[in-house]
Amino acid sequence: MRYCSNCGAALELRVPTGDNRERHTCPSCGTVHYENPKLVVGCLAEQGDGILLCRRGIEPRYGRWTLPAGFMENGETVEEAAIRETSEEANARVEIISPFSLVSLPHISQVYLLFRGRLVDGRFGAGHETLEARLFLERDIPWDELAFASIRRTLELYFEDRRRGQFGVHTGAIRPEPGV
Amino acid sequence: MRYCSNCGAALELRVPTGDNRERHTCPSCGTVHYENPKLVVGCLAEQGDGILLCRRGIEPRYGRWTLPAGFMENGETVEEAAIRETSEEANARVEIISPFSLVSLPHISQVYLLFRGRLVDGRFGAGHETLEARLFLERDIPWDELAFASIRRTLELYFEDRRRGQFGVHTGAIRPEPGV
Repeated sequence: MRYCSNCGAALELRVPTGDNRERHTCPSCGTVHYENPKLVVGCLAEQGDGILLCRRGIEPRYGRWTLPAGFMENGETVEEAAIRETSEEANARVEIISPFSLVSLPHISQVYLLFRGRLVDGRFGAGHETLEARLFLERDIPWDELAFASIRRTLELYFEDRRRGQFGVHTGAIRPEPGV
Repeated sequence: MRYCSNCGAALELRVPTGDNRERHTCPSCGTVHYENPKLVVGCLAEQGDGILLCRRGIEPRYGRWTLPAGFMENGETVEEAAIRETSEEANARVEIISPFSLVSLPHISQVYLLFRGRLVDGRFGAGHETLEARLFLERDIPWDELAFASIRRTLELYFEDRRRGQFGVHTGAIRPEPGV
């Protein structure tokens, strides 16, 4: 961030009055430009014992498997975001059951929020950023070809809860391993 | 948003290739400026039967009561954000118990996330954006002087759960009433 999105002047890093950290601040119009984490919202979509995964058709992690999920948009609720992402990435209609995992990734300022849901009519397919969508039983999950640590953690917790017969709401953080 | 924060050129509203909605896009350097909802994170801090509320010393809702909460910052986890906000607004150290409510406000593109927590050493006080911090029993909650609908909803759910002796994780949406 180098220029003011309000007036176009060059920005300065400055601690605003009453604040306690540096912000990109406009010396011309006075606008303070805050930067905040983004919510990535998606769905564990169930159909019988299967879970719907998508093989990514875009970078990052092209060709790897993930749950349908993406950046929440302005003007929607978290449930609407999960339903929209499942529609866009897997051409699937899903009914939300409950929140399942909330995973912070502080090093990239993202928070993942995954809901449990169920496929409404059993239909799905590859959305335009997806190479392939497929239902996986637990024993067939491609653990070594998953796209993101947050998705791996969510799937591990999901199958643990399912074996126990009780689903919780899980929070946690994932930080990069040293040296990675 | 009128100017490119990367190069300072005037922005255009345009649907980027592969996207399905208009974004502020830079015709000069090509940067697409996405806008996403913000997470407001805070804490229901318990001390015995009391809940810690803060009377706001800043706008909006100056003088009204709220739970300690604020915009999540880059580089932190959701739990760290709840602990930091409780420290900044109520000078209180809090230990997180569990997530409690997740409330979408799509008309202002915010998501509230409130955790249950407990005061570590019983101390609290007014932070620099707070006029007063105080522990309230359920019967003393100033329902008519609360700052935000999301906080009212969270407190209502909290006391319902407490009477039932079991705390859930609640999701919901608040939309403006017609004509307001």
